[in-house]
Amino acid sequence: MPGYTAPRRDLSFVLFDVLDAEAHWRAMAATREVDRALAEAIVDAGGTLAESAFLPLNASGDAEGCRFDDGAVSTPRGFAQAYRSYAEGGWTGLGGEPAYGGQGMPKMLTVAVEEMFFAANTSLYLYSALSAGAALLISSHGSEAMKQRWLPEIYAGSTTGTMCLTEPQAGSDLGLLRTRAEPLEGDEYSLTGTKIFITGGEHDLTDNIVHLVLARLPDAPEGSRGISLFLVPKVLDDGQRNAVAAGAIEHKMGIRGSATCVLNFDGARGYLIGEPNRGLACMFTMMNYERLSIGLQGLGAGEIAYQNALAYARDRLQGRAPRAEDRRENAAADNLLVHPDVRRLLLTQKAYNEGGRAFAAFVGLQLDIAKFSDDEVAARDAADLVALLTPVAKAYFTDRGFEGTVLAQQVLGGHGYVGEWGLEQFVRDVRIAQIYEGTNGIQAMDLTDRKTARDGGRMAGLFADRVAAFLADGHCPERLRPGLEAALEAFRRSTAFIVEHSAEDPALAGSAACDYLELTGLLAYGWLWAWMVNVAEAGLEEDGADVDFLQGKVATGNFFHARLLPLSATLEQRISSGSASIMALAAQQF
Amino acid sequence: MPGYTAPRRDLSFVLFDVLDAEAHWRAMAATREVDRALAEAIVDAGGTLAESAFLPLNASGDAEGCRFDDGAVSTPRGFAQAYRSYAEGGWTGLGGEPAYGGQGMPKMLTVAVEEMFFAANTSLYLYSALSAGAALLISSHGSEAMKQRWLPEIYAGSTTGTMCLTEPQAGSDLGLLRTRAEPLEGDEYSLTGTKIFITGGEHDLTDNIVHLVLARLPDAPEGSRGISLFLVPKVLDDGQRNAVAAGAIEHKMGIRGSATCVLNFDGARGYLIGEPNRGLACMFTMMNYERLSIGLQGLGAGEIAYQNALAYARDRLQGRAPRAEDRRENAAADNLLVHPDVRRLLLTQKAYNEGGRAFAAFVGLQLDIAKFSDDEVAARDAADLVALLTPVAKAYFTDRGFEGTVLAQQVLGGHGYVGEWGLEQFVRDVRIAQIYEGTNGIQAMDLTDRKTARDGGRMAGLFADRVAAFLADGHCPERLRPGLEAALEAFRRSTAFIVEHSAEDPALAGSAACDYLELTGLLAYGWLWAWMVNVAEAGLEEDGADVDFLQGKVATGNFFHARLLPLSATLEQRISSGSASIMALAAQQF
Repeated sequence: MPGYTAPRRDLSFVLFDVLDAEAHWRAMAATREVDRALAEAIVDAGGTLAESAFLPLNASGDAEGCRFDDGAVSTPRGFAQAYRSYAEGGWTGLGGEPAYGGQGMPKMLTVAVEEMFFAANTSLYLYSALSAGAALLISSHGSEAMKQRWLPEIYAGSTTGTMCLTEPQAGSDLGLLRTRAEPLEGDEYSLTGTKIFITGGEHDLTDNIVHLVLARLPDAPEGSRGISLFLVPKVLDDGQRNAVAAGAIEHKMGIRGSATCVLNFDGARGYLIGEPNRGLACMFTMMNYERLSIGLQGLGAGEIAYQNALAYARDRLQGRAPRAEDRRENAAADNLLVHPDVRRLLLTQKAYNEGGRAFAAFVGLQLDIAKFSDDEVAARDAADLVALLTPVAKAYFTDRGFEGTVLAQQVLGGHGYVGEWGLEQFVRDVRIAQIYEGTNGIQAMDLTDRKTARDGGRMAGLFADRVAAFLADGHCPERLRPGLEAALEAFRRSTAFIVEHSAEDPALAGSAACDYLELTGLLAYGWLWAWMVNVAEAGLEEDGADVDFLQGKVATGNFFHARLLPLSATLEQRISSGSASIMALAAQQF
Repeated sequence: MPGYTAPRRDLSFVLFDVLDAEAHWRAMAATREVDRALAEAIVDAGGTLAESAFLPLNASGDAEGCRFDDGAVSTPRGFAQAYRSYAEGGWTGLGGEPAYGGQGMPKMLTVAVEEMFFAANTSLYLYSALSAGAALLISSHGSEAMKQRWLPEIYAGSTTGTMCLTEPQAGSDLGLLRTRAEPLEGDEYSLTGTKIFITGGEHDLTDNIVHLVLARLPDAPEGSRGISLFLVPKVLDDGQRNAVAAGAIEHKMGIRGSATCVLNFDGARGYLIGEPNRGLACMFTMMNYERLSIGLQGLGAGEIAYQNALAYARDRLQGRAPRAEDRRENAAADNLLVHPDVRRLLLTQKAYNEGGRAFAAFVGLQLDIAKFSDDEVAARDAADLVALLTPVAKAYFTDRGFEGTVLAQQVLGGHGYVGEWGLEQFVRDVRIAQIYEGTNGIQAMDLTDRKTARDGGRMAGLFADRVAAFLADGHCPERLRPGLEAALEAFRRSTAFIVEHSAEDPALAGSAACDYLELTGLLAYGWLWAWMVNVAEAGLEEDGADVDFLQGKVATGNFFHARLLPLSATLEQRISSGSASIMALAAQQF
């Protein structure tokens, strides 16, 4: 069975040695109570729960899957009990509002915890990941009565939440959705329609579920300006089942322990959230939360796959080392770790995982500053960075996570393709993360069109200026400077190209989107790796330094800069080739 | 259910319009009988069988899988009947030696046929793909008696073949294998040991199976110089079952209709092929055959995935076209094909598939010239190109095939992740092709170390000279010339770097291997695309030209050159960064 050890050491390095979380927490009233000791205790306890309660159910949950029986959904054996331990430990309310029973922990800390639960058992954690986003939506846009009614239950883990957007004819294009909401009395409505691909739409972990549902009021404008948002409980306050039921569950490539449901609303009672026809804007609060969360699914998958590939590479004896000094004496073979191409596979994963962990913490920090800082300029800039970087985190984490699981599988050869080592499950499970919560192509369009072209490149410039400031402040290791400068300039030129040409070429943003998102992610990792190398090299000067950890950090940063960051030149070349080669084919010429 | 239409039109374009197959066939005595009409009739008939008999069993075979019951293996419902139609149609002996009942068709044609069967049903076709390689091994290295005994049966499809290399402790490193062969009398031996991951090791399609088995004679030298090759029939000539039996079948991520067996040899009777202790060299005849064949699995998977993604993109209405001229009037949404990022996904697949189809035909042609040409220099050069390019075809086809199926799945969004559209099966099925028949890392080492560094770059120079000759002969479209020249120079410089530094740095070849293989594949596709664009542009000048096909070809070639070929610069940069960043980490620093 695959193993997993929570990355406690690396999380501490990122949070405290690199990003100086304690200084940020001290500076904001809402986080002043949090210090390193508390944060490390939380990470440690979360990691232990992930290792001991989540991980053992990962393979069995995949093998068993969810069962559907006449509207009822059973989760795999052990899920309900593990979920109860998790809820009773207070994990469901970790980032929740204290006024309603949440623990109010900073986002910078909760992203660390999320990565670990996703790594250990994605299917099981998904039930909670959706609930946290639902709570955030309710706390941001719900009435006071709605908050008092639902937040304590969600924070306590006794009710979960879902996000009901997709319909058979409306996926990426929510403007096409047809679910209807007829007014009853007060803020009550009757909802009718079918939603598909609803994660955790029905299950046996809790007694109640709150569905957050997009629907149209009578005479609503067409398209996305005519969409309203409703809260639809599975069980009504009088104890009756509401008229919402699962019609089926999907048979999927992976996350087979997560119930993906067809939900039929048949005159179900719902409660309006926010203004009529303005529901999409409210739903974006949850969508943005889930986008970062699903990014962390990618990060967690990359980490657990790497750990298992590394363990295999240490044990498996195959072939002789190319360098004489690496050969074991009197042995017929050496372990896989001596082979350059296997090291390349592992280093690529390690570089992406640790770069991603730093980027996740950075985005988490911006979310905290945007929400809690008294410094208006800092808060506004942080909010802009969050807007710019959330689609990057979602897509780049999951693309690299998928790539990482595939590379990890490759380390095991044929043993990676059969079920017993678990690697093939990681590949299947993480693949969905590139698709749901808005495909990575949609994320790239959000970044490139909405957040960059239509913004005149202002937010992109804010991000570039952060990297430039790092290059100017003397902390960039000199050997890494030329590569980072080249990537930064490629990003600035690409941004300018997109902003300049989007006005006359409506197909440009879409043609450039995925490459521009990848360039942004690459630059972010290149910057954070240079920063981490600098911190690690300083750490190595200290007495009692954790030499292997820090030297490994330096060497992995060198690898990222030598072999992965140079892709920025190709990405710029693609972007600057414009839309012509993509738009030239007539439909019948494909 | 997914659809599939055999790429008849494109195969004719590649074989006859680009590579001028008829001129080559006329020039060689062994292929003089083959002409365009015959070849097109064979492709058409093979395509029809793939579409009508193989495709309908693909999804059901995956759902049902193989069953194992006390040593017996049942293939999925319908497989046996479809296999019989295929064998009775003469397809099992298509490339076989005429003197023993084969049809002697040129390799350039059989690669086309293989692509179609792999596309339509990889699991079913694998039984035959292994048999053809076994027949080639027997015809190349077996005694006359052995050929007469087995070739007619294999060509008739009444016996299949397997390739027994891997053991639990010996995968990529065959020097570690332990299966023993004790001499009996004459060329008979008694074999004892366990082989794993044996494709088609047991099944119910035919009464007999011949296993080609690597084993050690008593007192054989250690390592790969002490390996001998044996033919071990499942059923002996006296009708008795031989002492070889399946101990289990693997539960795999994909190719679930292909029986992957643990085979136990328990004093099984076998017959030596070739010289004692020289078995690995003989086995390489089959391995090289299968490497190209498995490459075609990647190509076929990429094609069927593309066709289904394209069909979905044409039908699915979602979002409005960014360009006003692409918008349907009075409609709420346009189809996916109008969106630049979806076009990018599809064009990437199309460019890889059609580039790969041309490359497969080119390698097939070199195999025919090497085997049949009277021109000694041409035959020797062709053999060198085959040696150089076989690992490239295996790895680059399967890497691009996997990438293509993932991109195709992405076009369908959530519908690509659930079972019913079939895309997720293509991803799962093709993933093994990057692993078996020597992982793609092993292929890259074969290319970079054995075929390039140790060869002083001679064969690589031969390939580069072909591209240079094309650039010199006036057929390269001028707008594509700078990109192709840049890729060629990147390849030449990278080759020189590897040859020069491998002597002093034993870790260099392994560090550069995968990037060098990718660079080689990219250059080959860039060259063949420029060639195809040239042919298509000339064709467009003719009366009655197939305008959409040819314009699509030109536009796809432009896309390849604008957006995919530029990666060559990054690959060169990685290669020239040497081994330092890969070898620096100590084992405990991972």
